[in-house]
Amino acid sequence: MIYTPICDLLGIEKPVLQGGMAHISDARLAAAVSNAGGLGIISAASGNVEKIEEEIDKAFSLTDKPFGVNVMLMGENVDEIAKLLAQKKVAVVTTGAGNPAKYVSMWKEAGIKVIPVVASASLAKLMERSGADAVIAEGGESGGHVGEMMTMSLIPQVCDAVTIPVIGAGGIADGRGVAAAFMLGAVGVQVGTRFLLADECCISRTYKDKLIKAHDTSTIVTGRRLGHPVRSLKTAFSRSYAKEEYNMNITDDELEKMAVGSLKAAVVDGDDKKGCFLAGQISGLVNKEQSAKEMIDEIFIETENILNGASKWVK
Amino acid sequence: MIYTPICDLLGIEKPVLQGGMAHISDARLAAAVSNAGGLGIISAASGNVEKIEEEIDKAFSLTDKPFGVNVMLMGENVDEIAKLLAQKKVAVVTTGAGNPAKYVSMWKEAGIKVIPVVASASLAKLMERSGADAVIAEGGESGGHVGEMMTMSLIPQVCDAVTIPVIGAGGIADGRGVAAAFMLGAVGVQVGTRFLLADECCISRTYKDKLIKAHDTSTIVTGRRLGHPVRSLKTAFSRSYAKEEYNMNITDDELEKMAVGSLKAAVVDGDDKKGCFLAGQISGLVNKEQSAKEMIDEIFIETENILNGASKWVK
Repeated sequence: MIYTPICDLLGIEKPVLQGGMAHISDARLAAAVSNAGGLGIISAASGNVEKIEEEIDKAFSLTDKPFGVNVMLMGENVDEIAKLLAQKKVAVVTTGAGNPAKYVSMWKEAGIKVIPVVASASLAKLMERSGADAVIAEGGESGGHVGEMMTMSLIPQVCDAVTIPVIGAGGIADGRGVAAAFMLGAVGVQVGTRFLLADECCISRTYKDKLIKAHDTSTIVTGRRLGHPVRSLKTAFSRSYAKEEYNMNITDDELEKMAVGSLKAAVVDGDDKKGCFLAGQISGLVNKEQSAKEMIDEIFIETENILNGASKWVK
Repeated sequence: MIYTPICDLLGIEKPVLQGGMAHISDARLAAAVSNAGGLGIISAASGNVEKIEEEIDKAFSLTDKPFGVNVMLMGENVDEIAKLLAQKKVAVVTTGAGNPAKYVSMWKEAGIKVIPVVASASLAKLMERSGADAVIAEGGESGGHVGEMMTMSLIPQVCDAVTIPVIGAGGIADGRGVAAAFMLGAVGVQVGTRFLLADECCISRTYKDKLIKAHDTSTIVTGRRLGHPVRSLKTAFSRSYAKEEYNMNITDDELEKMAVGSLKAAVVDGDDKKGCFLAGQISGLVNKEQSAKEMIDEIFIETENILNGASKWVK
């Protein structure tokens, strides 16, 4: 078995976190991942405090293993959500899109481990100084909101910058990716795209089918003009949106409006025309529908085999 | 020592290729890398056939080890350059920016190994069918011309697509990167950015100083609007160019003209104002001036240590 300091830190069996995917990562998926020995994570990106509380309570009823909640710091109702998480004493909070410094002491007093997602070495340093227990170094090959730094360059540079454990993310879906992240200095991984095909994942049939058909080059980044780049599957919608970003007859406001509701259209309605189907560059490798447990078991058997054979080129 | 099938294929001691960097990779750098046990590569991107012949002859005089030449297939005088390489019987040709199919049989008859740079699994497959001996899967964290796919996602998907050996590139500058590329399935690496600081590399003092000072987030991609994205160090010039890409009062022609001569201004003149200082995202890790031999020795000692310790998380 694979066991690293992240397992000790979070009280989990296998050093894998499930990415907190907006409108996707609910109690059912999180509990399935936690029951399989990883760390399931509920997304609080909706900003709906009551709904988030419901999901947390549901997860507590579905698993007695640790699970986490992901908070988008640029989202709505962040203060209330932060308080809720402290009251509920969830095991872990991961944060994205900002600096969680003002909540860290409250969360730590509640016994919560705080793990920010970072896209640069300087942000990782800042998070360590703010009291983070670990950081997730996420490269821009991931699905959803992306930074400019990519996994292969980001992980070692973050590892050099901090002394807290580093979790690698972005482009990781199998044992090869886990083993590579470990070589770069990470002691855990966060996986998003692969869990989209988990039996316990709620996304529409259309979304899953698109992912199964995807190749390596099937994703595109849109939103750079507005400063919020997002990676999703290429569709007529995302291609035309990408083109319109260079059309100055279209205002920023109009561009913003084009994207409203597009994630829900993908996740819930499976709407091919309006949907924005978030997915990472590793989509081409992701084509099997399995339970979360089958995925995790398979990933770590593969990781173990690869790491045990790693010295085969040393003569 | 580290020894893989790429060493056998190319007749080299250590599985590392030095990237063919336009206006930078000359006979002196290539010979230094080849003498150190790697595969040095001369860039033929200038399109100046006489100058390229001179450099090849010079490399033959500086080393009796194999070396290669990199051909930009969208460049000038490609037919003449291709013929020259066959006449000179250089050991290896690497190709970028296109499909070398029409030259492959000529080169192979001359005993040359042909290794295209690819940015997708489908292109890798096409290259294998065209008779390539190996492929370089280069992720977009590299310096210079970049594709959309990133190293962590690209290498495993290319490895799944072909049976010929895969060389990983993009974001690799130390033993951690080499070990990670091996875990993803590569049996060799191509390194560019780190060799910019080699004692034998001809770039201007300003260029080297900028690279030494660079952090992880010090690079930027420009040229997306014109369809030729390029990664370079952030400077006043590259930042303003990036901004102008969204300015529709500036025509594509004007944008194109802004970049003319910018590479030479960086490499030769060290011109801070007009120069385009190509470099990869791994720049933040690259800060030591050493001989090419010291770099290569250091990289592979580190690789060996990491691979030998790779099973430390297997309990």
